[in-house]
Amino acid sequence: MRIDLNADMGEGFGPWSMGDDTALLDVISSANIACAFHAGDPDHMAAVMRAAVTQGVGIGAHPGFADMQGFGRRRMSLSSEELGNLVAYQLGAAQAMARRAGGQVRHLKLHGALSNMAAEDASIARACFEAALAVDPELIVVVMPLTAMDEAAEALGAKRAGEVFADRAYTETGLLAPRGTPGAMIHDASEAAERVAAMLRAGGIVTGSGKVLPCRIDTVCVHGDSPDAVAMARALRGHLAAEGIGIARFG
Amino acid sequence: MRIDLNADMGEGFGPWSMGDDTALLDVISSANIACAFHAGDPDHMAAVMRAAVTQGVGIGAHPGFADMQGFGRRRMSLSSEELGNLVAYQLGAAQAMARRAGGQVRHLKLHGALSNMAAEDASIARACFEAALAVDPELIVVVMPLTAMDEAAEALGAKRAGEVFADRAYTETGLLAPRGTPGAMIHDASEAAERVAAMLRAGGIVTGSGKVLPCRIDTVCVHGDSPDAVAMARALRGHLAAEGIGIARFG
Amino acid sequence: MRIDLNADMGEGFGPWSMGDDTALLDVISSANIACAFHAGDPDHMAAVMRAAVTQGVGIGAHPGFADMQGFGRRRMSLSSEELGNLVAYQLGAAQAMARRAGGQVRHLKLHGALSNMAAEDASIARACFEAALAVDPELIVVVMPLTAMDEAAEALGAKRAGEVFADRAYTETGLLAPRGTPGAMIHDASEAAERVAAMLRAGGIVTGSGKVLPCRIDTVCVHGDSPDAVAMARALRGHLAAEGIGIARFG
Amino acid sequence: MRIDLNADMGEGFGPWSMGDDTALLDVISSANIACAFHAGDPDHMAAVMRAAVTQGVGIGAHPGFADMQGFGRRRMSLSSEELGNLVAYQLGAAQAMARRAGGQVRHLKLHGALSNMAAEDASIARACFEAALAVDPELIVVVMPLTAMDEAAEALGAKRAGEVFADRAYTETGLLAPRGTPGAMIHDASEAAERVAAMLRAGGIVTGSGKVLPCRIDTVCVHGDSPDAVAMARALRGHLAAEGIGIARFG
Repeated sequence: MRIDLNADMGEGFGPWSMGDDTALLDVISSANIACAFHAGDPDHMAAVMRAAVTQGVGIGAHPGFADMQGFGRRRMSLSSEELGNLVAYQLGAAQAMARRAGGQVRHLKLHGALSNMAAEDASIARACFEAALAVDPELIVVVMPLTAMDEAAEALGAKRAGEVFADRAYTETGLLAPRGTPGAMIHDASEAAERVAAMLRAGGIVTGSGKVLPCRIDTVCVHGDSPDAVAMARALRGHLAAEGIGIARFG
Repeated sequence: MRIDLNADMGEGFGPWSMGDDTALLDVISSANIACAFHAGDPDHMAAVMRAAVTQGVGIGAHPGFADMQGFGRRRMSLSSEELGNLVAYQLGAAQAMARRAGGQVRHLKLHGALSNMAAEDASIARACFEAALAVDPELIVVVMPLTAMDEAAEALGAKRAGEVFADRAYTETGLLAPRGTPGAMIHDASEAAERVAAMLRAGGIVTGSGKVLPCRIDTVCVHGDSPDAVAMARALRGHLAAEGIGIARFG
Repeated sequence: MRIDLNADMGEGFGPWSMGDDTALLDVISSANIACAFHAGDPDHMAAVMRAAVTQGVGIGAHPGFADMQGFGRRRMSLSSEELGNLVAYQLGAAQAMARRAGGQVRHLKLHGALSNMAAEDASIARACFEAALAVDPELIVVVMPLTAMDEAAEALGAKRAGEVFADRAYTETGLLAPRGTPGAMIHDASEAAERVAAMLRAGGIVTGSGKVLPCRIDTVCVHGDSPDAVAMARALRGHLAAEGIGIARFG
Repeated sequence: MRIDLNADMGEGFGPWSMGDDTALLDVISSANIACAFHAGDPDHMAAVMRAAVTQGVGIGAHPGFADMQGFGRRRMSLSSEELGNLVAYQLGAAQAMARRAGGQVRHLKLHGALSNMAAEDASIARACFEAALAVDPELIVVVMPLTAMDEAAEALGAKRAGEVFADRAYTETGLLAPRGTPGAMIHDASEAAERVAAMLRAGGIVTGSGKVLPCRIDTVCVHGDSPDAVAMARALRGHLAAEGIGIARFG
């Protein structure tokens, strides 16, 4: 069995850094690279693109709202036309930076508030994905299974990669259990790996009660914004190997 | 005889507009479209890209410094690496927006202070053009003939388009006569057209004393940031026709 | 009888202008000056501050969301702490620019989406106004009467100026009738002046059915973002004079 | 004998932090707080202002160029009018944030490229300081002694605080020895403290050859952008105490 590991990267900006991209690139198989709207800038993008190419990690564009101060985590009301242009612009910038680094953008994952809104509202997801596919019809769109985002991508005939979280519990409808809830966060890498293995074997998201919600699972999101997170990702990878699950890029 | 007419476009931003892009697209054959760093935003870019495709005008990326308030006209000190990333990023964004509009970016022209600095310093020009060509080796680079920018483009083996100004006098070394100088600005469209015709026939820039400085002349820059300017561009086109000079895209 | 006329100003940015501030300063008594987050920049602020001082017009800070491209018209989700800092920062910047121009900031009016959200949600209004009053307890807060914004300002013990629109119809609960609705927009200056006179005489907002909703009315909002708008404002001022209503700053 | 210790602070932005402001506030007597143009944002400013007030550290505005990505370290060409507005705006914003935190802005120190340019060119320094003094005539301006910046502040009759660097060698003309030069950087806190003590006793900057260049010395710049730097600052303070030099705010 094989699974992809993805993480957000290139989230420094100007003099500021975030996370240890180099360390994380050793662990993951797909990098979601910030496109200078909510984080990143052309210089940070260039550096992480080069590193991803060198380390053979799949390159993804990770567009977000134009809100650097809020790190793209604050909801903004944009029209469908604005959403499409926002995504197409960032995707194009990422493509050029990837090309210059000798690579290419293979996937797209929405960031922060934009992702949350697209998971809830298929028209938002559609506006984003349609624009991205107009730029590159072969793009693989990373989606949260069982959400409006997933439906929208499917309706557009997009290549999709279903994403699960190793360190989060799921509700009975397949959404992430809110962070406050008891048991919502899984802090043990071994337990996280077991959950991923269980979901892969079941072919769907396993909810709190143990119910299986069938869906495609292609990639596991790991976090990289702390030294701790890198250790967790590395441990997860080790435990997955112990479960007989190899790491390989989706697509 | 044929010549290209180019103009800067898409220089609105958010609620603000600049110039009459629609009117100007009827007159010119190449549009230099701002890439949201010194002017423009993804929505303005999308609109002008669509219009350029509809009207059959060649699309160019027009990157500048990240200085919206200063409209890219204030010099900034950037390293070669920063310059390259600045240009590659903007070019990629423009490519995606063009693709989505059903067109493609065919040329690149540097904007404002970035252009002035590249005309003076070949290492700056080289940093910009090398990055752009890494993104698209077929790109046509618009250059001011007889400047460091022209040398740099030639040294890189880039496809070039030499640009002259119809409404400006030239010094004996082929630079634009400073705006203050008597006779530096040509306000009459007929006279401007005659000058362009003379330069095309001579195969080079004609200086104040009548000396010919041989160089490639592929495109004439017209301005579009006032209703007046559109009328001037239209009149120039008419007078060029009267001189037997047709308008056609370079390249 | 006397009333204040207020208008948004200083809404240019960098090379872009908006409206004819100079012409409008002849008509109005209070200027709401953009603070470089949704429009304006330090240079535009300096120019309009100087003009307002010269023409004896009351100076107000007009803070908005940090969304230049969206002109502060797109809703953003901010915490109370963020809202307070957003407003305090912009107010302070305006105070310094006013002081340097020989004037002082006397009032504050929220802009665009921030204003709309504060009209609906007293906690948003409170976060904004509390921060502003911590910077200057004597500040006059411009409020839409009968809204959450008005309540919040009153609860904080702020000096208030109630604002009505001359060119908009009101619903039975005192809100602006949506722009689509028949009769929602008043295009005739004479009719607009009559409406203002009627509201002043009645001591409250007059709804579509003629009902009077008592509230404080201190200022009338006029628009300045088109040459047309300036003519409308001038005509309104003339018609108000004919109704025996003079123009004078509130406070 | 007494001296002030100053450090740059509030240099985080959005999700990014820089340095350990809390630790450093225990060591220094004056904080130069970034004003959201080259670093900082209203929320970071509010937090550091509150901490400075709590810890009794003097508050300064630390304006820089509007270049967040370049951290205000890239030179930009601005007119005198633009420079003045840039500084006045940021100073006003800092004043409001300080007032809201229960404090007040007492001094101003230019940042990065703006500071370097003002040290070389008195007209640039004058444009910045004149604007700041128009906002607050009592402001204390931190200057590099023996530079154009110092002259400009003196010519304006500004209250000044002369600043030296504990960890840098000086050339024979009183400028900082370039970082590459042997002996240019002092890494030992004890040696740095001895140098400060020597300069204070001599009443001027001590050059590489031991020559004394008389000037006012009111404050020593310490760095805070690394955990290391905080330790260095703390050690410097200890060694200064051992030399009989207490720490106290200037002014």
